[in-house]
Amino acid sequence: MGRVTARRRVVRVVDGRVSARPDTLAAEEPLEIRVGGQPLSVTMRTPGHDFDLAAGFLVSEGVIGKAGELNAIRYCAGATVDGGNTYNVLDVTLAAGVPPPDPSVERNFYTTSSCGLCGKASLDAVRATSRWTVEYDELQVDIDTVTTMPDTLRTAQLVFDRTGGLHAAGLFTRDGRLLCLREDVGRHNAVDKVIGWALREDRLPLSGTVLMVSGRASFELVQKAVMAGIPVLAAVSAPSSLAVELAAEMGLTLIGFLRGTSMNVYTGSRRLGL
Amino acid sequence: MGRVTARRRVVRVVDGRVSARPDTLAAEEPLEIRVGGQPLSVTMRTPGHDFDLAAGFLVSEGVIGKAGELNAIRYCAGATVDGGNTYNVLDVTLAAGVPPPDPSVERNFYTTSSCGLCGKASLDAVRATSRWTVEYDELQVDIDTVTTMPDTLRTAQLVFDRTGGLHAAGLFTRDGRLLCLREDVGRHNAVDKVIGWALREDRLPLSGTVLMVSGRASFELVQKAVMAGIPVLAAVSAPSSLAVELAAEMGLTLIGFLRGTSMNVYTGSRRLGL
Repeated sequence: MGRVTARRRVVRVVDGRVSARPDTLAAEEPLEIRVGGQPLSVTMRTPGHDFDLAAGFLVSEGVIGKAGELNAIRYCAGATVDGGNTYNVLDVTLAAGVPPPDPSVERNFYTTSSCGLCGKASLDAVRATSRWTVEYDELQVDIDTVTTMPDTLRTAQLVFDRTGGLHAAGLFTRDGRLLCLREDVGRHNAVDKVIGWALREDRLPLSGTVLMVSGRASFELVQKAVMAGIPVLAAVSAPSSLAVELAAEMGLTLIGFLRGTSMNVYTGSRRLGL
Repeated sequence: MGRVTARRRVVRVVDGRVSARPDTLAAEEPLEIRVGGQPLSVTMRTPGHDFDLAAGFLVSEGVIGKAGELNAIRYCAGATVDGGNTYNVLDVTLAAGVPPPDPSVERNFYTTSSCGLCGKASLDAVRATSRWTVEYDELQVDIDTVTTMPDTLRTAQLVFDRTGGLHAAGLFTRDGRLLCLREDVGRHNAVDKVIGWALREDRLPLSGTVLMVSGRASFELVQKAVMAGIPVLAAVSAPSSLAVELAAEMGLTLIGFLRGTSMNVYTGSRRLGL
């Protein structure tokens, strides 16, 4: 579709010297995800791998957990007054017998607990919704392997090198082999695209894998890893307090500030032999 | 409230050397914003300046535009089964005669156009909702002044220096004086907190100001600047294609990659005398 990047004239200023030149920008467009014709979510995303994004979003929200629960995904024609297709509206058909999502699905991870809206309630909601458990003895990862992942990810990020504007998420085997790389202006979208790829390949739960993200580790990114059964999440930047609490509660290994040969291990350090 | 940061033990690995030490994390907790008792939005945010966040969110969504339209904001007690206050639920009371937001308010900027869901429809929706117009001759900003803003912002970011995990948004005068700094795990929240501060000080529209953000410039950040009447948005990292399109359409000056004495000016360069 050729819309992952866009060209635009830019005025560059360096030490007072001014020049005009074309610049490459990361594309951003709205995407509406419908399920059975009912609008569920609108997100700003970088076009490309939209079916993965929709599938991963539904995994993250606990609607589906294996390929067989997904019947079909298609772009909606007729989204414009002249009947054209903007490629910005998707309709997902679930398999027979799969309950459609609650329209308030986006609030489920914050408000399902009776104890009031707080971090603890958010943790409880993820635990109640997750299909998988992560076993500590299931995966041992070598620290030296983990330190190779940022370079592997960056080398694979061709689009990133052109725009500097895209977040990346990469799914690795325990041996450091990159299984899937996805990029997006939104870091949540990049992770959903990776998880949706895995769902459509029927690889869930993603036991024995490491998910690496280019930015920070928030509660929502740990939640997405949990929902996909990913035991190790590594981020280039800092995690939040609630991200660390959720990782600890669910048995994930959470790594932050993974740069060069150094890292901070916030939870699950024994998976790294520490 | 003392919840802006949290302490946690971390295992630090540097070149194979392992040590354990306490680490400071940016706090993240859910916040539910209600208007007139009706739940409107749940966002994950760093606690602190919550009233600013709620006010700014309502400005960004086009619900309010001046201090007089806001009657009161309060934390809801009784949010837990034992009647306690989690300080994570806010109720906003609008002034008499101010229409309450549409419950689907979060989709308004994507889906209000009849031309289908696309970037153009998103631009149209912002133009239709914005109360202010930005005049080109209203503000001239010196490039040398702009280059001082990153240092000013970083110096003021005491919390950032401790956790490395917080996004910042700073509102500057055209002379480079910092009017307001807010931080959050979410960059949208940091901007909403700044705009909400300004609303509560009855400073909207924010003519003659520059908004600087620590991360990337997305469509939504430009939208927020437009809704507050801010004529110049400067970001440390890259803008998206749709951010540039919206800035061009609404007459904003959009600066990206503002680092040291260099920057890219994507739109509105004549405001900088270029």
